[in-house]
Amino acid sequence: MTPRVSVYIAVSLDNYIARDDGALDWLADVQDAGGGDYGYAAFMESIDAVVLGRETYDAVRTFDTWPFTGKHVVVLTNRAFTPAFGESTYAGALAPLMQQLGEEGVARVYLDGGATIRQGLDESLVDDMTLSIVPILLGTGRPLFARGVPSTHWTLLHAESFPTGLVQLHYQRS
Amino acid sequence: MTPRVSVYIAVSLDNYIARDDGALDWLADVQDAGGGDYGYAAFMESIDAVVLGRETYDAVRTFDTWPFTGKHVVVLTNRAFTPAFGESTYAGALAPLMQQLGEEGVARVYLDGGATIRQGLDESLVDDMTLSIVPILLGTGRPLFARGVPSTHWTLLHAESFPTGLVQLHYQRS
Repeated sequence: MTPRVSVYIAVSLDNYIARDDGALDWLADVQDAGGGDYGYAAFMESIDAVVLGRETYDAVRTFDTWPFTGKHVVVLTNRAFTPAFGESTYAGALAPLMQQLGEEGVARVYLDGGATIRQGLDESLVDDMTLSIVPILLGTGRPLFARGVPSTHWTLLHAESFPTGLVQLHYQRS
Repeated sequence: MTPRVSVYIAVSLDNYIARDDGALDWLADVQDAGGGDYGYAAFMESIDAVVLGRETYDAVRTFDTWPFTGKHVVVLTNRAFTPAFGESTYAGALAPLMQQLGEEGVARVYLDGGATIRQGLDESLVDDMTLSIVPILLGTGRPLFARGVPSTHWTLLHAESFPTGLVQLHYQRS
């Protein structure tokens, strides 16, 4: 049984997940003064493993706290790597990795980072996506859906808007 | 008093408003069997003038019925043009056109067509946008928000999801 592969990401109105230099400062616009997390904690509860690109990993490592405690973490990298929290590494097509994670009992995978999400879409592995649409046009940046992703139909499972203007949409591949 | 300038358009999850050849066949996915129009008729009631590009105009002219009866229609074109329904033409920056329309008593303008919307955004003229997000990844096509549009913040006025999976978001420039 291969795991369910999930994407959970914030995106600007113009389809960017980061500025050209990777900056996420614009997410401050939708920081909820009331401390709401837009369901992120509940989402994290539901996943067993995180598969993320090296660049995203390196960014996460600069955070004050490691956000993936208790999760099986796989970093996609070819480069030298010293695990700090029991992470493993992987390089190559994602399908065999998902197969392997499934055999290890992983039921749901969180696919994180722009390049990794694109690879998951290219391999038609993404089962569901939670997109948090931030009410800003960035004008330029790193696209979530690069030109060339396979054309796919999605079913809307849930839509919710928040006082900050963020709209969260949960889609399942049709 | 310059008119309020509005965008009302359907867009794929990956920010395309048409396939590369201009085709809109993918909108059939969200055709409402119940005959719902996602508020289009009400929107049309609220506008006094339509400003649209030549390519969009030429496409609209192939429709069985002229959809802009009773509206002041301005076609952005430099080329030879024979008005069929009293349309006027214009070429150049949009700001003076909006000024002129305002002087003629136009209170709200519907900006239609990819190139025209981009020009409106480039000139920071767009006051509100109704985006109908269609649950499909097209993979390629004509983008709504081209790289290089000015960075702008928007306020979410309304969000609504429909049984077809279409999500309609109404934003006002902040």
